[in-house]
Amino acid sequence: MILALAQLNYHIGNFEHNTAKIIEAIHTAKKNRADIVIFAELAIGGYPAKDLLRTAAFLTGCQQSLHQIADHCRDIACIIGMPTPNTTGQGKALFNSAVFLANGQVQHTVNKSLLPDYDIFDEYRYFEPANTTSCVHYQGKKIALTICEDLWNASAPKLYAKNPMDQLQEENPDFIVNIAASPFSYNHLDERITTLQKQVKRSQVPLVYVNQIGAHTDVIFDGRSIVLSAEGNLIDMMASFDEDIKYYRLEKSAIVPLQAVIPLKPSPDEIPLIHQALLLGIRDYFKKLGFKKAILGLSGGIDSAVVAALACEALGPENVMAVLLPSAYSSSHSIEDALDLVRNSGCRHEIIPIQPIADAFEQGLGPVFKNLPPDTTEENIQARIRGTLLMAMANKYGYILLNTSNKSEGAVGYGTLYGDMAGALGIIGDLYKIQVYQLAAHINRNGEIIPHNTIVKPPSAELRPGQKDSDSLPEYGLLDAVLFQYIENEKSAGDIIALGFDEALVKRIISMVNHAEFKRFQGPPILRVSSKAFGNGRVMPLVAHYT
Amino acid sequence: MILALAQLNYHIGNFEHNTAKIIEAIHTAKKNRADIVIFAELAIGGYPAKDLLRTAAFLTGCQQSLHQIADHCRDIACIIGMPTPNTTGQGKALFNSAVFLANGQVQHTVNKSLLPDYDIFDEYRYFEPANTTSCVHYQGKKIALTICEDLWNASAPKLYAKNPMDQLQEENPDFIVNIAASPFSYNHLDERITTLQKQVKRSQVPLVYVNQIGAHTDVIFDGRSIVLSAEGNLIDMMASFDEDIKYYRLEKSAIVPLQAVIPLKPSPDEIPLIHQALLLGIRDYFKKLGFKKAILGLSGGIDSAVVAALACEALGPENVMAVLLPSAYSSSHSIEDALDLVRNSGCRHEIIPIQPIADAFEQGLGPVFKNLPPDTTEENIQARIRGTLLMAMANKYGYILLNTSNKSEGAVGYGTLYGDMAGALGIIGDLYKIQVYQLAAHINRNGEIIPHNTIVKPPSAELRPGQKDSDSLPEYGLLDAVLFQYIENEKSAGDIIALGFDEALVKRIISMVNHAEFKRFQGPPILRVSSKAFGNGRVMPLVAHYT
Repeated sequence: MILALAQLNYHIGNFEHNTAKIIEAIHTAKKNRADIVIFAELAIGGYPAKDLLRTAAFLTGCQQSLHQIADHCRDIACIIGMPTPNTTGQGKALFNSAVFLANGQVQHTVNKSLLPDYDIFDEYRYFEPANTTSCVHYQGKKIALTICEDLWNASAPKLYAKNPMDQLQEENPDFIVNIAASPFSYNHLDERITTLQKQVKRSQVPLVYVNQIGAHTDVIFDGRSIVLSAEGNLIDMMASFDEDIKYYRLEKSAIVPLQAVIPLKPSPDEIPLIHQALLLGIRDYFKKLGFKKAILGLSGGIDSAVVAALACEALGPENVMAVLLPSAYSSSHSIEDALDLVRNSGCRHEIIPIQPIADAFEQGLGPVFKNLPPDTTEENIQARIRGTLLMAMANKYGYILLNTSNKSEGAVGYGTLYGDMAGALGIIGDLYKIQVYQLAAHINRNGEIIPHNTIVKPPSAELRPGQKDSDSLPEYGLLDAVLFQYIENEKSAGDIIALGFDEALVKRIISMVNHAEFKRFQGPPILRVSSKAFGNGRVMPLVAHYT
Repeated sequence: MILALAQLNYHIGNFEHNTAKIIEAIHTAKKNRADIVIFAELAIGGYPAKDLLRTAAFLTGCQQSLHQIADHCRDIACIIGMPTPNTTGQGKALFNSAVFLANGQVQHTVNKSLLPDYDIFDEYRYFEPANTTSCVHYQGKKIALTICEDLWNASAPKLYAKNPMDQLQEENPDFIVNIAASPFSYNHLDERITTLQKQVKRSQVPLVYVNQIGAHTDVIFDGRSIVLSAEGNLIDMMASFDEDIKYYRLEKSAIVPLQAVIPLKPSPDEIPLIHQALLLGIRDYFKKLGFKKAILGLSGGIDSAVVAALACEALGPENVMAVLLPSAYSSSHSIEDALDLVRNSGCRHEIIPIQPIADAFEQGLGPVFKNLPPDTTEENIQARIRGTLLMAMANKYGYILLNTSNKSEGAVGYGTLYGDMAGALGIIGDLYKIQVYQLAAHINRNGEIIPHNTIVKPPSAELRPGQKDSDSLPEYGLLDAVLFQYIENEKSAGDIIALGFDEALVKRIISMVNHAEFKRFQGPPILRVSSKAFGNGRVMPLVAHYT
């Protein structure tokens, strides 16, 4: 039996696009003599479709696609994910299903038993969990057909009361199929492989795992579909961040790749993966929304330089407009550094000095502010003038404004709402400052794109004379380390202090994080690359007493 | 047996405040000879605490509060809601529990069986549902102790596989207690009463239902705790939008109020309720965050006038700063109308003309825009200048900026991100334009506060000469009717057209709603008064193909 694994990029709600792509893959698989072609979880319709799952138009679209796809499943079987109606008369309206198609028809539907509802997942909002499951029989083989989380109840403490593989195992399946929509985070791969290996070691049969690739606003799927032998050995892993179709022959209990296997690095480096993820995140945002051109403010600092370089790589430098918005406090080297970036990356640029506009604000506010001394108010005005100028150019020319805030400053609220926090998409908002520097070094791996001086100079917002980030913030190495413990590792202040960090510093940082919830609430969606990004995955109350 | 129902306003994470308030109520109840005092769902710690429920500090705070409260439960029993740890070794980390305290100790813990996970609710993110439940025995009585949603599986199609009351009913309880955290929406009361009546009619015993009051950012609890007789008659309803403690004697199967009962209107008018809800929403936002002073832009139009009036009523006019920000396109009547509102409401005001700043932007952008004709870009610049000026005054003086957008314009994206969409809290963002007018009339019920001319003139954003809302938008009566079907009633385009609305109009409106998701994503939290508000309760994908 030959299995085709189709790792594709879907567009939420775009049935025409998804269906055509799926049908094309079915025909390609047929030509390559596959017996079964396997697509990802919720491939029809795309994932996460959120409350579109509550609309009749979306569900009708899914059913129509299914019928069109089924019609092409002759001389080949197909496993594909989609929402199906729950007709039992109780529970949520839908199941998260894997549909088995053959002879032009639905032969079997397996519903997901374990529904993730944590971090960015809220599947119980829409889906009823299955109470029972059973193997799919095809061409004399028994297939343990599972959906993503169904294989993830393997380690203690168990998040779910049951383990659907226990039931499937009783039928002695010949192999396991897991269709998934498993988002990327830079440190997730090892856990993914280990989890799948655990199941295989219990079952002693091969496993194929088919993931999606593609970005949907904040969430990025990395693909890297996996094939494991009955012994739990990693036989193959498919492309990262790219579409891919591969073929495997099932021989008794062995599974053999039918194309060359690229040797795998056991633990791929984080930064190149993040780089790939962000490029896909930018590309898919623009492609799936039908946009072409990006705009951003270029300060001469590291954050905007890295975002500009990423945008140029993702969209082509001809589609990137970098705007220098110097104020009276911008140092000459900042302008030079920004222009170096423009030269290195080949993007377009404009320069608009903001001082005359800042003066107009100062005059307008004079009667109200009387002679009160300048404070962060005046700094915020500069940031908001820049935001307004960038949005004006975006409005006039149809650019999409990229947000350049990093995770460190987003965490502690070191940014101006409606100013530098503006933008349609946060490109590096899930990267700590230290990671931004690492990414800059990686971008420069074949030659300087991010200017040397941008990398070596001390970070500054340049909103008042001689300002440095270190005036307001702890040194980034320390700040990022504490933030990582608090955000990614969800440690308490006490836990973090016990790791050896200074008590006053930890409390100050945590207080800054908690008091910036209102800012992050109004920030743009952020490309997610870590295990705990700001956004849907971390939902904190705004009106609350934080200790 | 005397029951005390304590309907209180909690502050999320403020254990000191909540615990003191709860203990005070226990002592008040004791003085009034109550045998049991009953508090709301998740009273300790507050609700919705969101991901604070994942932090050790919050859970420790809950346990410490519990011990302090238990210590006061001598000569009186207490039923109170809180999160408790799930120690079964499987499932989510917490239960949503009702704890029964007597003799200074926890006597019994009942865990919630049915966990809402729809609209603004995401309880399965945190809590494991109970598999089983049983009555609490106290002073010879059997209490069917339930938590909010536990009583809400009464009508078909059933959202949950089981009904915890079925199990409790087998024990022949003497009365039903339901502790709740049931948010306000203006049309929810009838459904609430009907649902509770259904349970009572099956059980044939009295029911007491204790709700929270208070606002937590967007979510507003209305109180209105309910007492039903064994026959399902509405015996009493407690205060709306205010704290309240009331006493009831349980006599065999009868339940008798021990204080005067205020005759109830069967269906209270919506607008006065919305008015009360918004006042509480504003007050609690400021009080619970420790703020005093609000700022807003006053255009002379209906939206900002209503928000100003509400803010003055909620916070005192001396704490409200209304800023007139006229441009070249502001009509003279707009300034007069705004000044009339200032006079009527007694708030403070400033006037800052924006034209010089708009000119500075025009000059700055001149070389980039060359001679391109003006379009919405220039309108957005005006809105963003206003947003920047208001934020500058907020930053300088510690004001909190109130957002004045209504639901109609939020729905169709008729507003400028970072401009008039700025603000910490959306006050009327869940009111359609028609409802804003109705609220204005209600605010004027004892004399003019909202100026007559503000009410009668045609709505205009005044961003270009002679502009009217009706240039860009359908007439509000029609727009709001279609929006209500699409948003509150979740009808499809086809359904709405079948109601008799023009096809082209419906499709245009729905397309506008779908294409404004990216704007709403970055909008402020909105005080929720309807059954489907923008925000947590309606989660749509940004990158998607909308049909």
